[in-house]
Amino acid sequence: MMTLKEIAGLVEGQLNGSEEFEVTGINSLDRAGTGEISFAVNPSYAEAVKACRAGALMLPENWPQDLLAALPAGLSGYILVKDPYVAYAIVAGEFARKDFKPKGISPTAWIGRDCSISADVSISDGVSIGDRVWIGSRTTLHPGVRIGEDVRIGEDVEIFPNAVIYSGSGIGNRVTIHSGVVIGSDGFGYAQHRGRHVKIPQTGIVVIEDDVEIGANTTVDRAAFGETRIGMGTKIDNQVQIAHNVTIGRHCIIVAQTGIAGSTKIGNYVMIGGQTGINGHIEIGDGVRIAAMSGVAKSIGPGETVGGAPAWPHRHWLRVMASLKKLPETEKTLWEIKKSLKGE
Amino acid sequence: MMTLKEIAGLVEGQLNGSEEFEVTGINSLDRAGTGEISFAVNPSYAEAVKACRAGALMLPENWPQDLLAALPAGLSGYILVKDPYVAYAIVAGEFARKDFKPKGISPTAWIGRDCSISADVSISDGVSIGDRVWIGSRTTLHPGVRIGEDVRIGEDVEIFPNAVIYSGSGIGNRVTIHSGVVIGSDGFGYAQHRGRHVKIPQTGIVVIEDDVEIGANTTVDRAAFGETRIGMGTKIDNQVQIAHNVTIGRHCIIVAQTGIAGSTKIGNYVMIGGQTGINGHIEIGDGVRIAAMSGVAKSIGPGETVGGAPAWPHRHWLRVMASLKKLPETEKTLWEIKKSLKGE
Amino acid sequence: MMTLKEIAGLVEGQLNGSEEFEVTGINSLDRAGTGEISFAVNPSYAEAVKACRAGALMLPENWPQDLLAALPAGLSGYILVKDPYVAYAIVAGEFARKDFKPKGISPTAWIGRDCSISADVSISDGVSIGDRVWIGSRTTLHPGVRIGEDVRIGEDVEIFPNAVIYSGSGIGNRVTIHSGVVIGSDGFGYAQHRGRHVKIPQTGIVVIEDDVEIGANTTVDRAAFGETRIGMGTKIDNQVQIAHNVTIGRHCIIVAQTGIAGSTKIGNYVMIGGQTGINGHIEIGDGVRIAAMSGVAKSIGPGETVGGAPAWPHRHWLRVMASLKKLPETEKTLWEIKKSLKGE
Repeated sequence: MMTLKEIAGLVEGQLNGSEEFEVTGINSLDRAGTGEISFAVNPSYAEAVKACRAGALMLPENWPQDLLAALPAGLSGYILVKDPYVAYAIVAGEFARKDFKPKGISPTAWIGRDCSISADVSISDGVSIGDRVWIGSRTTLHPGVRIGEDVRIGEDVEIFPNAVIYSGSGIGNRVTIHSGVVIGSDGFGYAQHRGRHVKIPQTGIVVIEDDVEIGANTTVDRAAFGETRIGMGTKIDNQVQIAHNVTIGRHCIIVAQTGIAGSTKIGNYVMIGGQTGINGHIEIGDGVRIAAMSGVAKSIGPGETVGGAPAWPHRHWLRVMASLKKLPETEKTLWEIKKSLKGE
Repeated sequence: MMTLKEIAGLVEGQLNGSEEFEVTGINSLDRAGTGEISFAVNPSYAEAVKACRAGALMLPENWPQDLLAALPAGLSGYILVKDPYVAYAIVAGEFARKDFKPKGISPTAWIGRDCSISADVSISDGVSIGDRVWIGSRTTLHPGVRIGEDVRIGEDVEIFPNAVIYSGSGIGNRVTIHSGVVIGSDGFGYAQHRGRHVKIPQTGIVVIEDDVEIGANTTVDRAAFGETRIGMGTKIDNQVQIAHNVTIGRHCIIVAQTGIAGSTKIGNYVMIGGQTGINGHIEIGDGVRIAAMSGVAKSIGPGETVGGAPAWPHRHWLRVMASLKKLPETEKTLWEIKKSLKGE
Repeated sequence: MMTLKEIAGLVEGQLNGSEEFEVTGINSLDRAGTGEISFAVNPSYAEAVKACRAGALMLPENWPQDLLAALPAGLSGYILVKDPYVAYAIVAGEFARKDFKPKGISPTAWIGRDCSISADVSISDGVSIGDRVWIGSRTTLHPGVRIGEDVRIGEDVEIFPNAVIYSGSGIGNRVTIHSGVVIGSDGFGYAQHRGRHVKIPQTGIVVIEDDVEIGANTTVDRAAFGETRIGMGTKIDNQVQIAHNVTIGRHCIIVAQTGIAGSTKIGNYVMIGGQTGINGHIEIGDGVRIAAMSGVAKSIGPGETVGGAPAWPHRHWLRVMASLKKLPETEKTLWEIKKSLKGE
């Protein structure tokens, strides 16, 4: 439970009503009960607001004065916020954290030797954990999760069923890893020898920093030497492939089915659209935005927006695509000119 | 077992021979035994037909009269059908259904509280099932399958090893889900706040209707609010990504490694080639056909055939690609003309 | 342990120093201890070589004479080799093989009936194995691996956590399969019948030959009839999709997120860049090289290098892309010429 005053502080909003009203949870306008808080993104929800039974509301700062007057009678208070959607995300996250109840370690989990596991974790049925693993407070491992040897997992981490963390990996705090994710599998490296591919041992590790989320069936390979690293606050969608020795900065967004080849460095605040391919051994500067389905062959300086395969400045790519669509006609015109010139 | 008469009715074919002959199974021409039925797709298999030991055959309606006279002596009957391949698929499916023998619930499966599970299921070793799960008759969960809380699974469903169904999902009847599939993982949604990506809770569900098949390692995200839905009879290949709030109609075909971004609506009888990317928040009309490796940025009306990235009407795309291949020569011709004009 | 003489033989190098020195392992220059061997790829590592504590070294044949004179005093010997990186890969692989210690079969693994499993295997917690499975010597199955019925797995195989092998598959010797891999799932095949997709039973198998490595979350479908086959020594990266009845030759390299459609035949020594799509029912000749993100629609003769989507000879593709980038300007020039001609 949180008081309205606590919530207003959390979302940096302006509270009108009972500071001490105790809120038990957050829900949508049609579902929120009298103890819960709800929210409206804009005045188009005015009717739903009137009809709702929520005990409290979060509304945008520019919510019209006349609608404020028409708020439901049962309301204990409302908070005016800059962005109700962000406020919803913040409050929902806070309730989820507060609602966490550790279930302990299932007797059917297999735990290795010399592990250090906090008392207030949830480790579910059929989880296997290797030797010398460290697991922080309030971390949840769902059924069938596999943790290799010498792995370190921080606090408030949630790992969904059947995800696999290979040996030696380091996972920060407040990390979420979805089902089918594989972290720390061998990088793809071979040396040619007498017509055969001889495996180069992949002896490095993977480090996932705080507040990272990794989507279902994404793969992150361990480094050949050293580290593959994903920076703080970066969010990765489903079925993304991150090769060995890649470094990804902070607060990046990487959409589904993108692949990043070996040893590439991605800066901070980079946005990568879905199904993009990024070459190995290049650098993508801070704040770069890459359109979906791009093929990035060369390094990109900070702040650029690119698109296409090969990736060019995005506006140029759009112009080229517009010209391309007319190419058969352009070509036809050219032959006509050529013919007429010859005819002269 | 089925009689020849029953099989003829099932495949809507014309039976010649013993109506009461009891067929124990279906097999290829070289493997079928005397109690089994086999099939030939066209007369190029005439020699294999002569040599086969099958007790019965399914043949195309236009099977030549002289070859009918030369059928093996041991044959108890044959059925003339419109499409022997379809007949094979129907009969094989029917035998598979009849041959199902429930193995019960393994003592090593972990079952939650307040579940409702039919008596005639097969739930294998190391399966975990959350609280309040409903499972219908003749459903099979292979080893390591994970079912979250409040999931409903219909009848005659088969879920292969290590697939994961997150909480709240609904799975229809006669659905097949292959290994590594993840259904109901969180949609990819964040709100920007002070330079950080704040997670928007994904509180919706996934609904999979009857007769859907989902290939290995495909991912289907739960909705932010409401539902992500896959319509009746739709078949999805391996490693397909379906984002939150996507709606897919009935009887679609979606080939491997395709990605569909959030909130897009796909109609009925849509065919999508492999490695295609489809933008979010657009509509693909009924009966649309999309070539492999396409990039669909905008909505497409019913019945269109498109290809390329960006996707254009397929025939136009092929013309553009033909022109594109000659582009360096076209360009050269242009400079020559320009030069000659200046020379005048 | 291996003697320096044995190692020199293994890497076909020229030994200087104590033939009988016993080497306990291989490590990087900064980590190798006095009993271990290390290596330098070229003279830029001269300072690290001087500072290292390794008992022995592998150096390139052209290591400068003056640097040889400056090798650390504690060194028991060094081996001059053609390619130190290859030598490292070979020696590390040999130590890994020698260091294997079977852990036996966990009492929490579920083993089917009529299996034949060698005594010196490692079968970990929560592994499930179907009936009539054959497993060779020194093979490791990590936690949560699922093996279907009638599977044959060779010697010195390693299968990482939560990989799944469907029934009937054959896995050769020295094969490595990473987490989340699915082998033998149903091929994607349906017959149209009255507006529905009727499943064609996929009754074939998958065969993986010796010395193959398969990356995390890759999928290999079983054949409709007959086999899907991956040839000896071929290396496959993460999230690759191989459809039913595909045949891949020997010693190929297939980079991440590539998809190969049904019944296609890939020759020997083929290199396929990442995120490539290859059409079904075509042939790729021996030694073909395909650039990343290509779309291969038609068969390719032996030895060709192709790129692009659609894939053309790679040099032509690069020329086309260079022309394409200038296309808006080219088009503009054309209209200017047309206009000036009209003006005459």
